[in-house]
Amino acid sequence: MKINSLRHIIPAILVGLASSTAFAKTTLSERSIPTPVGISAEFSHVIENREMPLTIPVPESTEAWIALQNNFDRAGIELARGALERLGVTYEAKTFAGVDTFFVSPKNIAVEYEDKWLIHLHGGAFVFGGGESALREAAWLANGLGAQVISIDYRKPPLHPFPAALEDAVAVWKELIKKQKPTSTAIFGTSAGGNLTLATTLKLQELGLPLPGALYVGTPAVDLKETSDSWYVLEGLDPLGQRDGLIQSTLELYAGGQELNNPLISPVYADIESFPPTIFLTGTRDLLLSDTVRMHRLLRGADVETALHVYDGQSHGDYMLGLLADIPESEDAIKEIGQFFDIHLN
Amino acid sequence: MKINSLRHIIPAILVGLASSTAFAKTTLSERSIPTPVGISAEFSHVIENREMPLTIPVPESTEAWIALQNNFDRAGIELARGALERLGVTYEAKTFAGVDTFFVSPKNIAVEYEDKWLIHLHGGAFVFGGGESALREAAWLANGLGAQVISIDYRKPPLHPFPAALEDAVAVWKELIKKQKPTSTAIFGTSAGGNLTLATTLKLQELGLPLPGALYVGTPAVDLKETSDSWYVLEGLDPLGQRDGLIQSTLELYAGGQELNNPLISPVYADIESFPPTIFLTGTRDLLLSDTVRMHRLLRGADVETALHVYDGQSHGDYMLGLLADIPESEDAIKEIGQFFDIHLN
Repeated sequence: MKINSLRHIIPAILVGLASSTAFAKTTLSERSIPTPVGISAEFSHVIENREMPLTIPVPESTEAWIALQNNFDRAGIELARGALERLGVTYEAKTFAGVDTFFVSPKNIAVEYEDKWLIHLHGGAFVFGGGESALREAAWLANGLGAQVISIDYRKPPLHPFPAALEDAVAVWKELIKKQKPTSTAIFGTSAGGNLTLATTLKLQELGLPLPGALYVGTPAVDLKETSDSWYVLEGLDPLGQRDGLIQSTLELYAGGQELNNPLISPVYADIESFPPTIFLTGTRDLLLSDTVRMHRLLRGADVETALHVYDGQSHGDYMLGLLADIPESEDAIKEIGQFFDIHLN
Repeated sequence: MKINSLRHIIPAILVGLASSTAFAKTTLSERSIPTPVGISAEFSHVIENREMPLTIPVPESTEAWIALQNNFDRAGIELARGALERLGVTYEAKTFAGVDTFFVSPKNIAVEYEDKWLIHLHGGAFVFGGGESALREAAWLANGLGAQVISIDYRKPPLHPFPAALEDAVAVWKELIKKQKPTSTAIFGTSAGGNLTLATTLKLQELGLPLPGALYVGTPAVDLKETSDSWYVLEGLDPLGQRDGLIQSTLELYAGGQELNNPLISPVYADIESFPPTIFLTGTRDLLLSDTVRMHRLLRGADVETALHVYDGQSHGDYMLGLLADIPESEDAIKEIGQFFDIHLN
């Protein structure tokens, strides 16, 4: 029996270099996917009761973008308000360093967070998630850690493309570290907010400014130019939808004509020599799983201290569902972020 | 505009609890998956040139199992010999503590591994991968770390089901730690070998024996009873094939009539209070991605020191391709294992 004829029964590690038929594009057949085993009853309930998205047409004018933005955010604001009330988290809108922000306070402030504010950059594909809808993740983490959070309501497209959001984040950072030690401060965010957390840190490095002591980067969009593998593989399993169409358009709207592989736009193209300790969260059904692990590897390539946590069966940002209900996996994510911050900040 | 009508445009984190249509089984449509972006040219070449497996009929008698086993291993042995020669790794077959083993030595032994032997439990679905074919991963890691490795050619089904393999591993461990500090010793393995690494450690805990200082657990099969999510989601992308049929049969053959959720058979069902520091490797196209991250979470639930590394686009065990050719991702995996062992063993 020759090796060649055994290809089909030898594990992956052995076949790679011996075989010959190209599958540059692999065709996956239609298949039926059951609810994952081993997840909590609460999270199973979420998965079994949600719908996949409809396709939204890409707005064709600035006015149409703004109208869509307002519709998105109206719903997000309603959810944020419900979450704030459920968690007993309060906030105050302030202009800080000339930037619109929300100062978010948990019901009980933990001792280790008494004298500091963490910085939050919200998600929403760079275009959405502004106003009080930004408070969703801020409230989740403020409540979970007992931490005070400044959530930046950064300027957004269509009126304010890149680098407006980064300028806002840098301005807030510079002002904040006048009063608090940068190394005991964290910046955090999910999705576009994860991108902005990374890009802000790159920008601070470029400017020679002090860096945060740690980052929490949730399922970040790090490659706005190329479509990472999991966008294709997991399409249909993640309520985020698909990259083509509205999402790709938001990315281009954000870039505002700049090259999409500019590291401040797509951090996975950065040259990393050093970087603050970073905790990444994602899930096995997350369209941004590949973006997340690619960024994780980039940091590890420079021996940056990192932690990667991948939740089975979770789609984009699902770890944050604790915002809306008690979900064990969401409490676990809070525990991981808390431990990471305890080691590197507190 | 009501929240309900916005479901399709609100990110995953917001829709979960608000929607209503069950998707206990999601149907994924046929799709075409390109080669992942951001991977090395060498690994792209591997992906683009490999074939998906044919279906192997499940053997219907002990003799037929043994014949299949011999065919598998003959090819594995040939590959192992090529790898040993390429890497300049040598070995000696020995009976150690009454168990068949290979003592594997790299061309150059690193200072930190001079006075110790690491223990290797090979993969191969519990049934295959024996004899000198076991030397593949042993040679890869021995060469990568400059470490001496005892690779256990443990007894296997069909003649020797569970717990024969664990008994062999425990016997070798007891003998080895007469001469070397358990805390500076690691046990490691991939796939079924990852399972056996975890199960051996659980067995050592049960017996009250000293534990290893660290484990390297590559894409382990931790749930032989239930089929974890990625087995379904990634079917067609991983040359390992599919769970139904031959693979499920090997798992049952190994269990030999014992309950499949016995933690020594399926470690994900273990009650973990403490455990040695463990590094996990897997890939985003790995059928055992879910098994790996589920086990990672189980250990993290007990605050065990862990590292999780997920390689984009990699299928089952692909990080080990450095065995056969120079692949940057494989060198990176060696670097991660080496750093983890340096911290916890050396």
